[in-house]
Amino acid sequence: MLTLYEFSSSGNCYKLRLAMAQLGIAFRRIEKDITRGETRTADFLAINPNGRIPVLVTPEGQVLPESNAALWYLARESQFMPKDAFQQAQVLQWMFFEQYNHEPNIATSRYWIHVLGEREKYAEALAEKQQKGHEALRVMDAHLADHDFFVGESYSIADIALYAYTHVAEQGGFSLKAYPAIGNWLNRVAEQPGYVPMEA
Amino acid sequence: MLTLYEFSSSGNCYKLRLAMAQLGIAFRRIEKDITRGETRTADFLAINPNGRIPVLVTPEGQVLPESNAALWYLARESQFMPKDAFQQAQVLQWMFFEQYNHEPNIATSRYWIHVLGEREKYAEALAEKQQKGHEALRVMDAHLADHDFFVGESYSIADIALYAYTHVAEQGGFSLKAYPAIGNWLNRVAEQPGYVPMEA
Repeated sequence: MLTLYEFSSSGNCYKLRLAMAQLGIAFRRIEKDITRGETRTADFLAINPNGRIPVLVTPEGQVLPESNAALWYLARESQFMPKDAFQQAQVLQWMFFEQYNHEPNIATSRYWIHVLGEREKYAEALAEKQQKGHEALRVMDAHLADHDFFVGESYSIADIALYAYTHVAEQGGFSLKAYPAIGNWLNRVAEQPGYVPMEA
Repeated sequence: MLTLYEFSSSGNCYKLRLAMAQLGIAFRRIEKDITRGETRTADFLAINPNGRIPVLVTPEGQVLPESNAALWYLARESQFMPKDAFQQAQVLQWMFFEQYNHEPNIATSRYWIHVLGEREKYAEALAEKQQKGHEALRVMDAHLADHDFFVGESYSIADIALYAYTHVAEQGGFSLKAYPAIGNWLNRVAEQPGYVPMEA
C-alpha cells in the first residue's frame, strides 16, 4: 500500500488525497505537524532531506517528495492525464505555474493567517503576497473565462493542483468575488466523481 | 521550426537553449528584454498572459510557457529522460524543487545583483534569499555526494534545470566553495556532448 506523509491542513497534501480518492487508490496516512517542526526532525529528514511534506512512499519503499511530481506519478496513465504529448506539457505548465506563481503567495498567506493565526506578525510580507496572489488569480480567471478546465477541456491533475489552494484562498485573505470564471470552475471541480473535501 | 521567446541573461531560457543544442533541435530566438518591460506589453501578453519568458512556440503555433514544462516537452522521448516511470517522477521532483526552492532564491538574487546591478536597493530582501538559497544548495550537495547526476545516474533534464542557475550562483552572491559535490557535478555537466555556455 502507498504511504502519504502529510499535514491535514496542507493543500499540497490534499492534492494527493483528492487524486487517490478519485482514482480509487488505497493509501495510509502519517500525520506530520509542520507547525511543531515534525518535518525537520532527523527521522523525517532521512525520508525527505528537503524537510517538506507531502512525501509519497510506494509499496516497494521508493520515496517521492513534491506534491505535483507525486500527482503526475499517481495519475500518469489515468483519465486525469491527457493522451496528447503537447497537452501533457500544458498540464506541467499549469503545475509549474501553481508552484511558482500561486502557492508561494496564496498558500503562504493562508498559512500565516489561517494555520498560524499570525496575520499581524506578517502584515508587511502579506501585502506583497496579496498583490502577487491576485496576479495569479487574474491569469487563471482569464483562462477559465473560455475554458471549462485548464487543459484540453477535461478535468486533469492541472485542475487538482490549482484547486487545492484556490478553493481556500479566502482563508488567506483573497476574496474570489472578482473572479467569476474561477467561481464556476471551483463548482465544476467539486462536482467531479469521487470528490472529497479538504477536511481542515 | 521552433521559436524561443527569451532573454539571454535568463537561466530559465538557457535551459532550453542548452537542451536544444544537445538534442540537435533547430530553433530561432526572439529576444525580449525583461528589464525594459518587453514581456509586459499587450503584444507579449497575447502570447503568454503570465508575462514571463521563456515561451516555446511549435512550428504549428502551439504556445508553451514555463521553462521546465518546455524542457519536458523537448526531451520527453530523448536520452535526457529516464525510461522508468518512477525515475520520470523523480526528474519532475527535482524540477519542482528547482522552481520552488532554488530559482526564487538563487536566480532572484542574481537578477538583483548581476542583471539589475542593485545590490544595495535589495539588501534586506537579499538576506532571506541568501539563507533559503543556501538551504537548497545544501540539499543538492548532500544528494550529489553519492550520485553523479540527480536521477538514475545519468544526465537528464533534472540536471539541465538545476545547472542553469547553479553554475552562475556566484553572480547572485552565493559562494559554492562549501559545496564540493556541486562543484564536481558542474564539471560533469559542462563535459556533456553538445554543451553550450550561457553567453550572458
